Amino acid sequence: MNGDRLDKQMGFLLEIDKLKLVVRQNYLADGSRREDVAEHSWHLAMFVIILAEYFPGVNFLRAVKMALLHDLVEVYAGDTFAYDPEAQGDKEQRERAAAERIFGLLPADQAAEIMALWAEFEEGRSLEAICASVVDRMQPLALNSAAEGKMWRSCGVSVDMVRERNRLVFEHGPEVLADHVRRLIREAQARGCFPDSGE
Amino acid sequence: MNGDRLDKQMGFLLEIDKLKLVVRQNYLADGSRREDVAEHSWHLAMFVIILAEYFPGVNFLRAVKMALLHDLVEVYAGDTFAYDPEAQGDKEQRERAAAERIFGLLPADQAAEIMALWAEFEEGRSLEAICASVVDRMQPLALNSAAEGKMWRSCGVSVDMVRERNRLVFEHGPEVLADHVRRLIREAQARGCFPDSGE
Repeated sequence: MNGDRLDKQMGFLLEIDKLKLVVRQNYLADGSRREDVAEHSWHLAMFVIILAEYFPGVNFLRAVKMALLHDLVEVYAGDTFAYDPEAQGDKEQRERAAAERIFGLLPADQAAEIMALWAEFEEGRSLEAICASVVDRMQPLALNSAAEGKMWRSCGVSVDMVRERNRLVFEHGPEVLADHVRRLIREAQARGCFPDSGE
Repeated sequence: MNGDRLDKQMGFLLEIDKLKLVVRQNYLADGSRREDVAEHSWHLAMFVIILAEYFPGVNFLRAVKMALLHDLVEVYAGDTFAYDPEAQGDKEQRERAAAERIFGLLPADQAAEIMALWAEFEEGRSLEAICASVVDRMQPLALNSAAEGKMWRSCGVSVDMVRERNRLVFEHGPEVLADHVRRLIREAQARGCFPDSGE
């Protein structure tokens, strides 16, 4: 009985290895190559650990779990580029189907728990979801800024698009983080990191 | 004041991006390429989340944190191959120096907390350290077995070396996990995954 449960768990843990093969648009901080989703998820969990103090009352464990599993659906649904409006169109449907398939590999109780955490992150209303979502904006911004806008320039992402993408931080994030994000964008613009920086 | 604290935190979070560039000997499950340490750390944290139920009384958050940061020192110390006795010799000294350097980028209170968690993992005595260390044996074993022993054969790692490496699981891990590890090794041997499988 226990063995069957463990076999399901190990099957799931092996299947999610594929997340290491899903490549995002963002470059690493040194610009040497693009980042994969497993690396992004690890980095995000570290962001939560270090920055969760700016979200008083947040449940650390729930926020870290969300960071670790928020992109698991991309094992089947692939990475949807944040600045591609067409791909964003059917993202919800594709990811919902992928969630049922990937979480369905787990024993029913764990599948339900993880599905609920993922749905809560997607909904974006709980304190933990806001914390994970705010750092999910800050992590790519920090990397893209460190890589001198390599992704922004190669993908034609303007400073206005980045400001719009970070609206969540400005509207729902703690002021100190919102200030930091504003400054990062302003400084990146001054250094010519955006395709339209010459304006 | 808050800004200075955040600058330190963001400096640390950007510096640890380098962990994505540190490559381990293990291959991904599909054998297509070697795994990097950031990916390994994410995968390990997922192992903790899914398997921590076999460690009654474990503090999930502390165990997940250990999984996420146990290899951070490799940003400076590099990855030390588990089956290289020579490199193992000065590993402790190299990693201690690296720990002081990398954790020292953080505000003092966070540096102390993370340094203590890392030292606790290295010492390997608390329930959380045992949980994180047991899955730190299981994750590479699962990948190497799925990749049909590509790393074991290319690096000359015998079945006895793998059994010795997993002694921690047999001696300190829960029986159901130890049984699973024994079975994985036995089946991998039967499939010819070790350089000495012909014996």
